[in-house]
Amino acid sequence: MKLVELQNVTFVEGGVCAAKGFRANGVQCGLAHKPLGEMAEADAAANNALPAAKKKNDLALIVADNECSVAAVYTTNKVKGAPIIVTKEHIKDGKAKAVIVNSVNANTCNPDGVEKATKMCQLAANTLGIDENDVVVASTGVIGQVLPIEPIANAMDELAGGLSYDGNKRALEAIMTTDTQEKEVAVKFEMGGKNCTLGGMLKGSGMIHPNMATTLTFLTTDADISSEMIQAALNATVKETLNRVSVDGDTSTNDMVLIMASGAAGNTPVTTEDAEFAKFKHALYAVMMNLARLMARDGEGATKLIECCVRGAETVDIAEKVAKSIVGSSLIKAMIFGEDANAGRIFCALGYSDAEFDISKVDVEIASTNGLVVQLGKNGNVIEFSEAIAKKILQEEEIKILVSLGNGQGKAIAWGCDLTYDYVKINGDYRS
Amino acid sequence: MKLVELQNVTFVEGGVCAAKGFRANGVQCGLAHKPLGEMAEADAAANNALPAAKKKNDLALIVADNECSVAAVYTTNKVKGAPIIVTKEHIKDGKAKAVIVNSVNANTCNPDGVEKATKMCQLAANTLGIDENDVVVASTGVIGQVLPIEPIANAMDELAGGLSYDGNKRALEAIMTTDTQEKEVAVKFEMGGKNCTLGGMLKGSGMIHPNMATTLTFLTTDADISSEMIQAALNATVKETLNRVSVDGDTSTNDMVLIMASGAAGNTPVTTEDAEFAKFKHALYAVMMNLARLMARDGEGATKLIECCVRGAETVDIAEKVAKSIVGSSLIKAMIFGEDANAGRIFCALGYSDAEFDISKVDVEIASTNGLVVQLGKNGNVIEFSEAIAKKILQEEEIKILVSLGNGQGKAIAWGCDLTYDYVKINGDYRS
Repeated sequence: MKLVELQNVTFVEGGVCAAKGFRANGVQCGLAHKPLGEMAEADAAANNALPAAKKKNDLALIVADNECSVAAVYTTNKVKGAPIIVTKEHIKDGKAKAVIVNSVNANTCNPDGVEKATKMCQLAANTLGIDENDVVVASTGVIGQVLPIEPIANAMDELAGGLSYDGNKRALEAIMTTDTQEKEVAVKFEMGGKNCTLGGMLKGSGMIHPNMATTLTFLTTDADISSEMIQAALNATVKETLNRVSVDGDTSTNDMVLIMASGAAGNTPVTTEDAEFAKFKHALYAVMMNLARLMARDGEGATKLIECCVRGAETVDIAEKVAKSIVGSSLIKAMIFGEDANAGRIFCALGYSDAEFDISKVDVEIASTNGLVVQLGKNGNVIEFSEAIAKKILQEEEIKILVSLGNGQGKAIAWGCDLTYDYVKINGDYRS
Repeated sequence: MKLVELQNVTFVEGGVCAAKGFRANGVQCGLAHKPLGEMAEADAAANNALPAAKKKNDLALIVADNECSVAAVYTTNKVKGAPIIVTKEHIKDGKAKAVIVNSVNANTCNPDGVEKATKMCQLAANTLGIDENDVVVASTGVIGQVLPIEPIANAMDELAGGLSYDGNKRALEAIMTTDTQEKEVAVKFEMGGKNCTLGGMLKGSGMIHPNMATTLTFLTTDADISSEMIQAALNATVKETLNRVSVDGDTSTNDMVLIMASGAAGNTPVTTEDAEFAKFKHALYAVMMNLARLMARDGEGATKLIECCVRGAETVDIAEKVAKSIVGSSLIKAMIFGEDANAGRIFCALGYSDAEFDISKVDVEIASTNGLVVQLGKNGNVIEFSEAIAKKILQEEEIKILVSLGNGQGKAIAWGCDLTYDYVKINGDYRS
C-alpha cells in the first residue's frame, strides 16, 4: 500500500531514527514466547514455513542525545496499564531523554505493576547514566500476567550497547504484537528556514471494534518546539488520525502516543500557535495519517483498507461521526471482505451514527484508488448501479466509501479494514 | 438451551397463537430465493443435506378475532423502513386487528417503499374484510431492493384461507432470515382472578455490534389492558431485554416490537400502574427475556450464549453500561469462541464502558449453568485461577460472566454470543 503524499513534506527513511540525534535498539530478552508472525499466520502452512528458532525482539530502547521536550496522549480506558501511570509521572516536567518498551506482557491488572514499570525505568537510567525521571516506559501484550523483570535486567547491557542511529527497525520489531507489517513513517519539512525531520513507529491493528485500536506510537523530531506546543499539535492530530481508525473513542488499557522533540534542527523555538507551528502540525499530520492508514490496513486478519470520506456535513463533528460509524460497522467490514456492494448496509450505518443530518439528501459512492467510481445511493435511496464495476472496485486492496450529506462544508476521513475469518482465528486464542 | 423459569408464570406452547383469539399463517409467496437455513449453514456439507426444493415461507399474517389494543417500539435508526412509517400511522389510534409481514426484502431505501407498504395493508384488509388502518405491516431482509408486490397479491387468498389458531409455526418460519432456530415463547399467568396468556415470536440474531440486533417481534395476549398501559410495559421491558442483547442502543432500519391485547381473558381492564399491571409486566418480561436469550444464542454463526450479570453498581444505569460493554466486546466474544479465559479482556471492556465506578473494587468470575464458578479477578487485578476449571466452564454452551462493582445495589443482565468464523462467512455474502 502506498503512502499518501501531502504538500511541503517529503518522505524519508529511518522511522524513529530519521530525526537528528536519536538512537534506537531492540533485542530479544526472553519475554517473547512465539515466533514472529505466528499469531497472524496461524494456519499450518504459514507456520511450517517459519524457521523454528526465529524469535522476535521484545524489548526496545530509544535514546535522545539531548534532553527533549515531550508530549503524550494516553488511553481513556478506566483500567490503565501500570507503565502509563509511571510515564505520566516522569514527564510531568515536559522533559525526557529515553523510552523503554516491551511487548508480550502489558504489565496491567497486576498488583506489582507500578513497581515493575518503575524498575524498568531504573534499569534503563542506570545503564544509560541518566535520571530515571527522564525515562518513559510502555508495555503491550497480554493483560493480567505478572511481568518477569529478570529477562529485562539481564538484557540491558546488550540493549544499550547496541543503540545506533539506524536502529529503528530493531526497535520497531520489539514493539510489534499481532502486527504483520512494519509501520514506520518519516518526513522532512522546512520550518523557520531550517530542514527538520519528524518520524516514528507504530504498533497496533485497526480492529473491528472501537475499543481495540490498541496502539503504541513513538514519534521523534529534531524540531525545536516547546512541550506545550507539541502537546497541542499532538492532541489535534490524534483526533484526526489514530482516533479515526475503526471507530475509536474507547481505547485499550495501554495505548500511548509519545513524541519527543530534540531541537537539534536549530530552528527558532516554536512556542505559540504561529505559522511555523502550522508547518509542524502539517508534518505531524502527514506522519500520523499515514501511520493510521497502515494500522487500519494491518487490522487483525484484514485483507483490505477501507477509507470513508464524508463531506457536505453541517460540522466536522457530524462528518466524523458518520465516517466512524461506517468504518466501524461489522456488517460493512464483512461485506467488503465478501466484495459484495450492499448499499443498504451503508445507509443503515449512516442512520445509526448518532449525527444530525437529513437522510433524504445523502448520496453514497464507492471508489478505487485508480479512479473507478460507482454511485450506490442518491437522496437517501439505493439506486441501480453496475454490479460489474462495483465488483471491480471491491476487488482492490483499498476501497473508498464516499458520502455526501448535502448540507454544508464539514469533512472528515476515517479508516477501517475488512472483517475476515482470520480475525476470529487470531482473537479466539490470543494467550496460548 | 433451556428457558429460564420465573415465579408466577408457566410456559405454554403456541407462540403468537397461545393467547385466546389469535389466528396465524405463513406461506411461501415467492420472495424467498434461498432454501431455509442456507445462509446460516453455508458450508458444503450442510448445504448438500438440504432438500433442493425446500423453500421457506416468506409471508405471514396474524389476525385477531376482536379489535386489539396495540403498542409498538421501533428502531431508533434515522433510516426507517417504509413499513414502519405506515405502521406508525395505522396504530396512532392504539388499535389494530391484523399484522402482515414479509421477509427476504426489507422494503427500505426504495423511492416507492411507502406505497408498497400501504399496498400490503390494503391487500390484507381487502382479503380479511377489515379496515386497512387496522393492519400493521412489517418487512425484513435486504435493504434497497424494490419490493415486488405481485407475489404478495397472488398469495393473499392462500394466506388468509390457511389462517388457524395453531398456525404460529408457519408464521414464524415466514419472518425468519438468518435465524437458525425458531424463537417463540408463551406463558400463562393470573391477573384479576382470570387466567391470561401472553406469547410471541421473534426474528433476529444477537450479533456482534450494537447496531445489528435486527429484530421483528410480535406478541399477543388475551389480557384486557389499555394501549397506554401496554405501551408503558413494553417500553420498560424492551429496555431490560432486547436492548440488552449485544450492546444495542443503535438499531437496524426495520426493527419493530409489536404487542396486541385482545381482552378475551375477561379480566377487569388494566388502565393504571397498579398491582395487576405489575403482574402483566412480569409476564411480558418472562416472555421477552427468554426471547432475548434465544436471540443472543442464535447470533449469526454463534455457538455459545454469554450472559453477563453485573451487581454492586451505584445505579442500574451503571450496571447496564458495564454489562453491555462486556457482551459487546468482540475480543471477549472471540475469546469465548476460543474457550480461552483471558481475564484481561474482561477488565479492558469494563474499563471502556463509559460508566463511573472504582476499578480497584471490581471482582470478576465466570460460571456455568451447572454450578462451576471460578474467580478470575479481584480488586481490579487478574488473579491466579484454575485454568482447568475455567476451561470446563468455557466448554459449556452457556457462559456466565459475573461482575461485582462493590459499590451499591444496582444490577443488570445483558446477553451476547461468541464471535465465530461462521459470522464472517454469513455476513461476507448476505445478498447473493
